[in-house]
Amino acid sequence: MKLQVTQENLNKALANVARIANSRTTLPILSNVLLKTVNNRLSIAATNLDIAITHYVGAKVQKEGSITVPARLMQDFVGSLPNGTITLELDEHKLKVSAGQYQSTINGISAEDYPVMPAITDGAEWSIPTPVFKKGLQQVVLAASSDETRPVLTGVYLYTENNNLYLAATDSYRLAEKKLTKLESSVKLLVPATAMQDLLRVLGDGEEVVSVVHDDQQVLFKVNDVELVARLIEGNYPDYKRLIPANFVTTATIKKSELSSITKVSSLFARESAGSVTLKVDEAKQQISIHSVASQLGENTAQAEAQIKGDGEITLNSRYLLDALGVIDGDEVDFCFNGKLEACVIKATKSKDYIHIIMPLKS
Amino acid sequence: MKLQVTQENLNKALANVARIANSRTTLPILSNVLLKTVNNRLSIAATNLDIAITHYVGAKVQKEGSITVPARLMQDFVGSLPNGTITLELDEHKLKVSAGQYQSTINGISAEDYPVMPAITDGAEWSIPTPVFKKGLQQVVLAASSDETRPVLTGVYLYTENNNLYLAATDSYRLAEKKLTKLESSVKLLVPATAMQDLLRVLGDGEEVVSVVHDDQQVLFKVNDVELVARLIEGNYPDYKRLIPANFVTTATIKKSELSSITKVSSLFARESAGSVTLKVDEAKQQISIHSVASQLGENTAQAEAQIKGDGEITLNSRYLLDALGVIDGDEVDFCFNGKLEACVIKATKSKDYIHIIMPLKS
Repeated sequence: MKLQVTQENLNKALANVARIANSRTTLPILSNVLLKTVNNRLSIAATNLDIAITHYVGAKVQKEGSITVPARLMQDFVGSLPNGTITLELDEHKLKVSAGQYQSTINGISAEDYPVMPAITDGAEWSIPTPVFKKGLQQVVLAASSDETRPVLTGVYLYTENNNLYLAATDSYRLAEKKLTKLESSVKLLVPATAMQDLLRVLGDGEEVVSVVHDDQQVLFKVNDVELVARLIEGNYPDYKRLIPANFVTTATIKKSELSSITKVSSLFARESAGSVTLKVDEAKQQISIHSVASQLGENTAQAEAQIKGDGEITLNSRYLLDALGVIDGDEVDFCFNGKLEACVIKATKSKDYIHIIMPLKS
Repeated sequence: MKLQVTQENLNKALANVARIANSRTTLPILSNVLLKTVNNRLSIAATNLDIAITHYVGAKVQKEGSITVPARLMQDFVGSLPNGTITLELDEHKLKVSAGQYQSTINGISAEDYPVMPAITDGAEWSIPTPVFKKGLQQVVLAASSDETRPVLTGVYLYTENNNLYLAATDSYRLAEKKLTKLESSVKLLVPATAMQDLLRVLGDGEEVVSVVHDDQQVLFKVNDVELVARLIEGNYPDYKRLIPANFVTTATIKKSELSSITKVSSLFARESAGSVTLKVDEAKQQISIHSVASQLGENTAQAEAQIKGDGEITLNSRYLLDALGVIDGDEVDFCFNGKLEACVIKATKSKDYIHIIMPLKS
């Protein structure tokens, strides 16, 4: 293997890929990245056996070849080099990396020993505009569970219903659902939330399209020069739609920034009580008030004006409320609930595409 | 106690003071800050028994009084409030804090229970321009030890010799000395480096003066509305001047940014070897080359042009070299040494006020 690449391209690719290799692993070779010439490109790849990312960069290839090298050292070294041309040259298992006044030798392990995820053959294929998919993922992925004892809840559910494509995630304490776009294909995929977070990191701000290819076992996302493959989660996603209330006793319409400010301040006094804050909605005063108590330290009350229909009171985890407000679109939100015991719903006043549900705490 | 202050002033004071209270402590009240009306000001103070910081802010005092409240909660709460007026009102041991739509009650502990460091009476007093003192401290404090088994080395030595004021610090592996300014008073103080770091945090970028008052036990630094008192370290500072070589076999004059770049890159390959990098100075080539080896991972070499007098080679801890280059003034440095076994000296080519010494590693 002998080739030239630019520091800018290789550095960007390593930043996308090395994170996967740097996650803790039992198999030492998985902390390496795989470098491989592919026609006039260099592919930089890493896998943790559940997720694989491959990034292609343009290269002036003089001699084909492949090798794996320690991801962290390669990333740090390339990141420290000045902009310009980098030459990679393989001598047995030693990769010589040189750029201007810098010459390094990095000890590699043969590419043949690197595990490869199976290819997707005969998969269904469709695509979606990157900005739509990226926005939807950001709004939904935070509601997925990180508790491995219920694997289906650690996934993001990507499915079609009536020719609409939806994203949904829930950890059973909160739930987020986004209606993305019309889609003719029939889709039903349960993708690990961690893979979706990695995908979010590689999705740029451009207006390209994400191509999606999937079979029963795996899904492949392709955007520009990056490919991400994830193993699908097995199992049936819970029928979450029945958890979403249709009518509400209490509805408050409030500026998102106001609700966010009073919740943030109140949460400081809720650290002892797992983030518990109580919201009181008062129709006569047209006001939401929020209250939290830290038994040892003190207590806090704050108010904000709102358009109210129906009095009510509900106790929530302030972190969940802040998370939801952080991803909802628009300046104004509807905060709706039916007493202390049922889930509350938060959504943008002017849009029906995204809803966020939070289960109440016992007060 | 009842008074009004601005959020901006109180927030800034708490940021300066709360850090001291937030350090781990065995005495619970030390995680509180002491609030006290002093004429038309509010004093905000904290101590960890070795260091005490007091910050004064202007206040509209309606009723005198004092209380201590949890530092972290107070800081986080005040930091989250919008700019504008904050009212503090004491009701028994409960401090009511209100600002616009926010009302909080914070449970306090009586100010009488808060430990106070003794006042300095009959102390010597002098002053120094803040920018001079700040710059000097930044250049020296990094060389102090954090190893409590040799307490004198955890201090910064502030002393006069021939009517010049000096700062010095050493952890026995490296040493930094700064000549600050002419001073008529006679000074010989060993101040904990941690206190100097806290002082650096409160010194602004203005052109004011730091007043220094000290007796045998304590030193007080006063700048604008902030006072910092530190307990002095007992013991005699080592006679470090004899460690500074007077003549050199090898001298390299090099752009500071160049030496810094090649050292940074080389240090990536020196993680396994405690940062060990070898610098080789070649008079014929007028070049410094740096080399590091990570036995498992690989090795690195880099070169930079320099004006050289005398060949030589020395092995150093790259972190110490980078630390030194980070605080030395000017664009060009002199890197001077006498073979592999003696300390090397790094200083700005154009200034004699600051020198930095690093002991070599065995190569």
